[in-house]
Amino acid sequence: MKETVSVVLLGTGHMGTGIGRLVLEKQGLELVGAVGRRKERAGKDLGEILGLGKNLNIRLSADLDDVVKQRRPDVVIQCTGSRVTDVYPEIQTALCYGANVISIAEEMSYPSYGSPELAEKMHALAVKHGATVLGTGINPGFILDYLIITLTGVCMTVDTITASRINDLSPYGPSVLQTQGVGLTPEEFKRRVREGSVKGHFGFPESISMIARSLGWKIDRIEQSRKPIVSKVRRQTPVVTIEPGHVAGCEHVAIGYIGDKPAVTLIHPQQVHPHLEDVQTGDHIRIRGIPDINFSNSPEIPGGIGTIALAVNMIPHVINASPGLVTMADLPAPAALLEDIRNRIGKERKR
Amino acid sequence: MKETVSVVLLGTGHMGTGIGRLVLEKQGLELVGAVGRRKERAGKDLGEILGLGKNLNIRLSADLDDVVKQRRPDVVIQCTGSRVTDVYPEIQTALCYGANVISIAEEMSYPSYGSPELAEKMHALAVKHGATVLGTGINPGFILDYLIITLTGVCMTVDTITASRINDLSPYGPSVLQTQGVGLTPEEFKRRVREGSVKGHFGFPESISMIARSLGWKIDRIEQSRKPIVSKVRRQTPVVTIEPGHVAGCEHVAIGYIGDKPAVTLIHPQQVHPHLEDVQTGDHIRIRGIPDINFSNSPEIPGGIGTIALAVNMIPHVINASPGLVTMADLPAPAALLEDIRNRIGKERKR
Repeated sequence: MKETVSVVLLGTGHMGTGIGRLVLEKQGLELVGAVGRRKERAGKDLGEILGLGKNLNIRLSADLDDVVKQRRPDVVIQCTGSRVTDVYPEIQTALCYGANVISIAEEMSYPSYGSPELAEKMHALAVKHGATVLGTGINPGFILDYLIITLTGVCMTVDTITASRINDLSPYGPSVLQTQGVGLTPEEFKRRVREGSVKGHFGFPESISMIARSLGWKIDRIEQSRKPIVSKVRRQTPVVTIEPGHVAGCEHVAIGYIGDKPAVTLIHPQQVHPHLEDVQTGDHIRIRGIPDINFSNSPEIPGGIGTIALAVNMIPHVINASPGLVTMADLPAPAALLEDIRNRIGKERKR
Repeated sequence: MKETVSVVLLGTGHMGTGIGRLVLEKQGLELVGAVGRRKERAGKDLGEILGLGKNLNIRLSADLDDVVKQRRPDVVIQCTGSRVTDVYPEIQTALCYGANVISIAEEMSYPSYGSPELAEKMHALAVKHGATVLGTGINPGFILDYLIITLTGVCMTVDTITASRINDLSPYGPSVLQTQGVGLTPEEFKRRVREGSVKGHFGFPESISMIARSLGWKIDRIEQSRKPIVSKVRRQTPVVTIEPGHVAGCEHVAIGYIGDKPAVTLIHPQQVHPHLEDVQTGDHIRIRGIPDINFSNSPEIPGGIGTIALAVNMIPHVINASPGLVTMADLPAPAALLEDIRNRIGKERKR
């Protein structure tokens, strides 16, 4: 029997712990280390942090370099940040020990858009050490980019792409709700958008760039707008109460233009309890071309579950890939991993 | 500037001529030869056969070996049959000259299901001559297999898959309508199903096998049924008139079982003028797992256009792939080819 595929978990927040639990469920995958930054958790057993009610004999470390040097994992799964500039140092550390990296950092879905120099450095480092780096996640990484690209595969030509992801923010905690401006007055929302503390969705320019590269379009400019979704009714979650006239979420829109033509329009209204105003959640992709395509999936694919699943399901593809920095569009189709992962690993296994 | 990517068209029926016209529209692609079996067309210029109103200075040949030997194309696109046993000799010829092959033969979407020995031979021959062989098409090849696989990529686990493609046969000619039993009495339909002359859809076992391999399922058996769609109203196309009580099409269903559980159920009712009985055409994928997925695309992606587009859009992926026999699930996401194909071809270009 082949060796198990060893994983180090980097980040133990909501996504990291979900990924950790899923890794434990999959045959042939083995958690061999965990790194977290919260001081109060240092030295705790990962089993406790994952809420398993048993120990895994893996102590949470704050030192990625030490963990990767000791354990030499096949893969590091990174769930620590959104920005390439923030997550790059950790990726560099993992690559230097030849570990493959799967990152759910939004900007890592297409890092050469915002950080072309760091992307080049990552690619060179990955090639040098025989490892592969992939950014993935539900969005960016799948719904508003990868799935659109895949659907254009049946098109002779494409004129415009319009896609929306209408989702429910109710399960999220205060930090996510703050970046969406939930609970603010419309005026305060607009002020914070200008200041930059209400951010909306991360990853639109990355999604548009991934689509454009896959189709061969040159996007001349990307325009983004963030508008308040003003509630007509009272909406309440465990962490916020929204009175009528206040903000229930953020409608974030990004448009990629070719000349004056809006070639790619991505629409992502995120709010708490959309059903209270009869808003049906879902993922919708409309392609105008030959042929037209009208895709709908309702309710939306849940973001947390989808991101956790993709991070784990992509492990065999990343291990089998040629060394370097890759995007979802460079690898074979993602697929639910329902068998022993060792059956999926090619002969020339990378470490 | 790099050399153009050269294509030989093998088969000049409805699909072959559509692919030929699309190849001519794409930058960097060059048609360098055409092979057809119909004697009355021998020696005619391909421009006439494609209905272009001008000559292309490519004479239709009946001798694939000669055309491939003379032209040494990068790719042969094969549109000549449905069965692996029928199309294998041509694929062998193309591979022996190092040409990559894209086949729209339904069974070529997953040839190791029905013809494991020929699949092995093709793979060995492709590796030996540094070429890649791919089977593609709208279905099998995309809707009821590749797209399902891709959507499971966001699933932590999958329990069952049920998918249907409800389409309109009205544009098709007499040979397709005969294999679907259109115009027969229900009794005659059932008799011809038993005899094997009413066949329904080609490729269900291939689609189920591709899904199972991608997910890691072991399918114990595949059961298929073909039922007449009996019309309540008069339906008419240029080639057939169906009186009430007669057959408007074939509802072909295939189920892949794991033990006694129907793990994959694929439903493909094909009929002329479904709108006359308020049947809405479309592609539907329902996955039960974590999470559930409810995908719909309506109307259905047209089969002819989709197959033509995929055959051309996959050219760069096939040229860039490692030598051997591959399936859609082994290659990067298909994408509409909207730029000069030479921008897509990697440095180590295969001939």
